[in-house]
This record gives sequence, structure tokens and C-alpha cells, in this order.
Amino acid sequence: MAYNLDMPLEQALRTQRALRRLKTDPVEEELLLHLLDLAIRAPSGSNAQGWEFVVVRERETMARLARLNRQAFSLFRLFKPLAKMTPTRQRMFESARWQADHFEEIPALIIPCLKQVIWPFPFLAATSAFGSIYPAVQNLLLGARAAGLGAALITIPLWNLGAVRRAVGLPWRVTPCCLIPLGWPLEEYTPNRRRPVREVVSFERYGRRL
Amino acid sequence: MAYNLDMPLEQALRTQRALRRLKTDPVEEELLLHLLDLAIRAPSGSNAQGWEFVVVRERETMARLARLNRQAFSLFRLFKPLAKMTPTRQRMFESARWQADHFEEIPALIIPCLKQVIWPFPFLAATSAFGSIYPAVQNLLLGARAAGLGAALITIPLWNLGAVRRAVGLPWRVTPCCLIPLGWPLEEYTPNRRRPVREVVSFERYGRRL
Repeated sequence: MAYNLDMPLEQALRTQRALRRLKTDPVEEELLLHLLDLAIRAPSGSNAQGWEFVVVRERETMARLARLNRQAFSLFRLFKPLAKMTPTRQRMFESARWQADHFEEIPALIIPCLKQVIWPFPFLAATSAFGSIYPAVQNLLLGARAAGLGAALITIPLWNLGAVRRAVGLPWRVTPCCLIPLGWPLEEYTPNRRRPVREVVSFERYGRRL
Repeated sequence: MAYNLDMPLEQALRTQRALRRLKTDPVEEELLLHLLDLAIRAPSGSNAQGWEFVVVRERETMARLARLNRQAFSLFRLFKPLAKMTPTRQRMFESARWQADHFEEIPALIIPCLKQVIWPFPFLAATSAFGSIYPAVQNLLLGARAAGLGAALITIPLWNLGAVRRAVGLPWRVTPCCLIPLGWPLEEYTPNRRRPVREVVSFERYGRRL
């Protein structure tokens, strides 16, 4: 195997986080394929593997997606003063702004799709569909982390689903679910921080904490 | 750290698969908490961490969920003769039947939830919501695999969302997204098999294969 992704699982999980500040250096095609091969190790409903991944590197397509991202981000900025800005949120905002400003220069962007129309009802259909793509997305993010590649999970450009479809020629029955910018990072992976696990775990009944 | 989850990432990804035949031996609470602590290392939209996990071990609750699962499974069996039964599908079906027949004896069942109502529209809202829980679900499955615990991602009992909510006392504004039976497996982890990656990857435009 050409790439060393043998980082211990626990270390990969505990240090995976969104790295949005990326160098413009290209990412090897073989590495992208290796990461996608790890992505599709994930489970999918009835093991149907109904996924499709579009890898975007061309500047023109990236510029179209950058515009979509920037439009939504401008709207978000209007509302920003309304939100409580903790230092953590402020850092995330700065990082998202950097990404919006440099979106055209992303070396590779992966768009995970489902080869189906996602019906919003019944709930079972919706959760089964999204549960058949996001596990693969998470595998991809973990593989990127182990490879030392910067990555992030974003959905904002999907505010205009039709425009994303047109940008990469997706038929109407193929649904783009999110976007993952990839590139060699200008930042470093550090341990991620979360609220204590016992605050989000109940036993037997909701709200019954340990 | 009490548990050895230091399996190389790539090995964990390549051998994770649904193991449904489980022993009845209990799973230590500390291990469950450790796996959930790995689950919440996953990303979530705006890092909001709006998740909640309910761990079910009581027999009475498990029996209620078992009934829900069996009801849906019976319906599924009616349609089974209509589907093309490859050997792989047949094995999956047998495994799902074993699970349905032994659901009451599952040692621990985890229900990952979102602390929100999931709006089906616009699409951006739906995909951002599910994209804030399934990465954590996949982390949990990978942690279980590294610990040697059998696990599977199921959604079928959610055909009756209200009944699942009542079984574990979820308020209406907390949405259960899937269920993960956990236990020491009667089977072994073996490499998962998937279609070749190049068949599901396009470059620049949909359908442009390498």
C-alpha cells in the first residue's frame, strides 16, 4: 500500500477536526483514490453501496462552487452579530471566512452523492438514505486525517442544490449530500475538544444520567 | 486508557462490518462510555454537538424495540421473494433474521439522537442535521470494531418513530436517528468487500471515470 494510514484508530479519532486553511499544492490522484477506497468501506443500507463521488479540481468548476459558498456566507455574516460569539465560535468563523475567501484555490474538492432521490417522508426513508452516505464521509475524513491532509465537512453550497448539480453535471436522480475540500494544511492537527461524554449519555431512559 | 483501541486505522476501516449474531454476555459500562467518548470526537454542524445517546440494557425496553423490529421484518419477508437473492443478499437476510429472532437478548443497544426536530425542507437543513449525527455513529462503529465488539447500524424500528420515542422517554423535540445493537460477537471480523472504487468515482464531471 503506497500510503501510510496506519495511525492508531484512537489517535485518528481524537485528533480529527476541520482544517480549512489549505496550501494550493495539488493532491496526488492516487492518494485521493486511496482515501475514497477507505470511504467505501463504510456500511450502507442493505449494503447497497448507492454512492457516487465527484472529485473536482478544475478551476472553473471550483469558482462556481466558490460563488455559491460565498453567497451563503455573506448572508450568514449579516446574522453573525446576533449570535453569541464565544472565542471558539470566533475561531470557527475566522476559519470559515478564510475558506470562503480562498475557495477557488482548493486543490481538490470531493462531493459525496447518493444515486437516488432522497424522499423526506417517511422519516425512516430519509434517515436510511443519509445513514448510507455519512458513514462513508466520516471514513474519508478519518483517512484524510491519517494521511495528514486537511479536510472539512461542509454543506453550505447546497443551499442551491440545482446550481451544485449543474456545476458538475449531476442528473436529477443523483443527490449531492455534502462537500469536502481537501489539501495539504497550513495548520496542524491537534486534539479535538468536546463536552464531557456523560452530559450526552442517558441510560435506559432519556435524561437518566450516570 | 483502559481499553486498547489502538488498531491501525486502515485495518479498522477495512474490517468493519455488521456483526449481528451476538453473545448474551453483558458489555461493561466503562467500555460503552469509552466508545461513546470516541463517537463524540466526530464533527457536527458548527460544532454544535447537538447529540444525545440513549443506552438501553433493560429487558422490558429491549422487548418493546424487538417487537417494532419484528413487525417491520415480517413485512420485509413478504416482499423477499420479489427481490433477486444473490448469495451475499441471502447471507445478509439470514443475519438480519437471526437478529430479529434474538433482539430481546441484545446486551446493549445505543440510540443516537439529535436534540432537534429534523426539518425535511430545505434540503440543506436535512443534510446538515443528519451530517451532524452519522459521523458520530460511524466513529462508534469503528470503536466497536477495534474493541472486538459486534455492532450494526439499523434503522428499521424507526418505521414507528412515536413508539421508539415512548420506549425510552424521548421528548418530541429529540429525534432518534438509528439504533446500534452491541455485544460480544459469535462471528469474526473479516475484510469487508465492496465494488471497485473506480466504478463510483468521477473526475470533474459526473460519469467521467478514470
